[in-house]
Amino acid sequence: MLPVVVVHGGAGIVPRERSEKSTSGVCSAARAAYAILQGGGSSMDAVVEAVIQLEKNPTFNAGCGSVLNAKGDVEMDALVMDGKTLSSGAVSAVRYIANPIQLARLVMEETSHACLTAEGANQFAQAMGVPEIPQESLITEYSRMRWIKNLAPGANPVESQMGKMGTVGAVAVDSEGNISCATSTGGMLNKMEGRVGDTSCIGSGGYADNNLGAVSTTGAGEAIMKVTLARLILFHMERGQSVEAASDLGLAYMKSRVGGLGGVVTVDPQGHWAARFSSLQMVWAAAQKDTLHYGLYTGEHFTQSIDDQH
Amino acid sequence: MLPVVVVHGGAGIVPRERSEKSTSGVCSAARAAYAILQGGGSSMDAVVEAVIQLEKNPTFNAGCGSVLNAKGDVEMDALVMDGKTLSSGAVSAVRYIANPIQLARLVMEETSHACLTAEGANQFAQAMGVPEIPQESLITEYSRMRWIKNLAPGANPVESQMGKMGTVGAVAVDSEGNISCATSTGGMLNKMEGRVGDTSCIGSGGYADNNLGAVSTTGAGEAIMKVTLARLILFHMERGQSVEAASDLGLAYMKSRVGGLGGVVTVDPQGHWAARFSSLQMVWAAAQKDTLHYGLYTGEHFTQSIDDQH
Repeated sequence: MLPVVVVHGGAGIVPRERSEKSTSGVCSAARAAYAILQGGGSSMDAVVEAVIQLEKNPTFNAGCGSVLNAKGDVEMDALVMDGKTLSSGAVSAVRYIANPIQLARLVMEETSHACLTAEGANQFAQAMGVPEIPQESLITEYSRMRWIKNLAPGANPVESQMGKMGTVGAVAVDSEGNISCATSTGGMLNKMEGRVGDTSCIGSGGYADNNLGAVSTTGAGEAIMKVTLARLILFHMERGQSVEAASDLGLAYMKSRVGGLGGVVTVDPQGHWAARFSSLQMVWAAAQKDTLHYGLYTGEHFTQSIDDQH
Repeated sequence: MLPVVVVHGGAGIVPRERSEKSTSGVCSAARAAYAILQGGGSSMDAVVEAVIQLEKNPTFNAGCGSVLNAKGDVEMDALVMDGKTLSSGAVSAVRYIANPIQLARLVMEETSHACLTAEGANQFAQAMGVPEIPQESLITEYSRMRWIKNLAPGANPVESQMGKMGTVGAVAVDSEGNISCATSTGGMLNKMEGRVGDTSCIGSGGYADNNLGAVSTTGAGEAIMKVTLARLILFHMERGQSVEAASDLGLAYMKSRVGGLGGVVTVDPQGHWAARFSSLQMVWAAAQKDTLHYGLYTGEHFTQSIDDQH
């Protein structure tokens, strides 16, 4: 059953014209991460590689392609967690960085802290030699168009937000049984400056524990925080629920208790995995035993050989 | 059994010359919060009032009296959570504010977000009419002395940090059964600029749920985050553990799994409460049925009539 990696590209409603790009993006990311695992790489290397690919891909709301805040700027959140030590690294409201997930990993590996925010995160990036890039290189035509649209009188940013929540993330178990998660996002469309959502918040945006498994979440960030969704799902697994049942229980509770929709990718130490969501869609892909699995709508589950290029 | 409020002034080692001030500070805060509850006020009003008092008190590491970061600046984190709706509000790395806990409450009540960080949090404060104050008014002689001491060659900021971790917090249940928590801190001595610890992280620095209870935490921040200590304790309570047993189980797990020490104040919906810690000391006070309870060392539990001025 090991190794395994499961990737998501966000829960919400993927516009039809973007669905193919979204699907091929997560499939490529899952393939790249799986190649690392097959080569004996760690689950941390695998999830970070998957997320880097999605941050670089302008289709997703993370890195290049991030949504813009109320001022038209890009502020990004990211989190990694190592299930062996329970160490985590996060950045919140960071700017001018191509790959926030790499910076989050550096916070975990090179500091005694678990999260650096805003200007302090950028200073750390500079100290680590991570290049600062022009904000323009993170902004796509599409994200600027959506931002402008939401400034118009009568616009409904909340409704628009539901249309594309492409936070990205991955969970993996490597051949040695080490488990990791990674999540990265541009956050919420037209958010206030300095808004920090679930992604960089340990237990909400993600959690990994070699004894239990790992979860990476996406969806209505503030609702995810209210129920600490990632940790909640792992508590259900600790009580004997399967990855599917635990994921569904967590998402159903979030919907009934606080009215929030979202999605998750989940693994357990044995390599069982799930990609579940309460939103209309979530684009996801998984790689295990040389097979690539992927889907977008509820109930969709396509498979192909890992070597076939889709 | 209702109403009840439990307050802490930080886990760690309280220097002897500061122990009396610490004890009288948490007792005053518990009395003020209890008066609100007895007057029919909400648990949210009560926990915020308790924390405001401790933020204003220079003895504690929150608001005035906050420890200084590596650059000699004050950056503060705070969190409130409403157990009825699971709504929360937080600020992280905020500057120039007398009472971060009030700003955290405004984030919860006046925005659609759950956390604002750094400059964005200060912009929000300005928009809300919260006055900006000079940084000097948050810095005590004591905190500056400790900062300078830790810049000296051969200094050990980590060891020094263990000496005073005066994060403050409170949990309460009001007469209507509504449960709230609040936590506020200056963070970790000589921390990097932009470091965000457990305090503003929902599920780590605190959690409140009318169905389960509430916890506010203090201690080794990064260890608290690794185990999402507040949420972990509430899961133990959900499985039938008492407030004491659940608190001890959470703290023991944190110690054995990740080597971290800390303390918590915990309540359940019936009004059972606990103040437990794995550190050498935690200054705490509780008010219930017109009795004030307080202590500092393990096993200490003094009581007096709520009306007696200590």
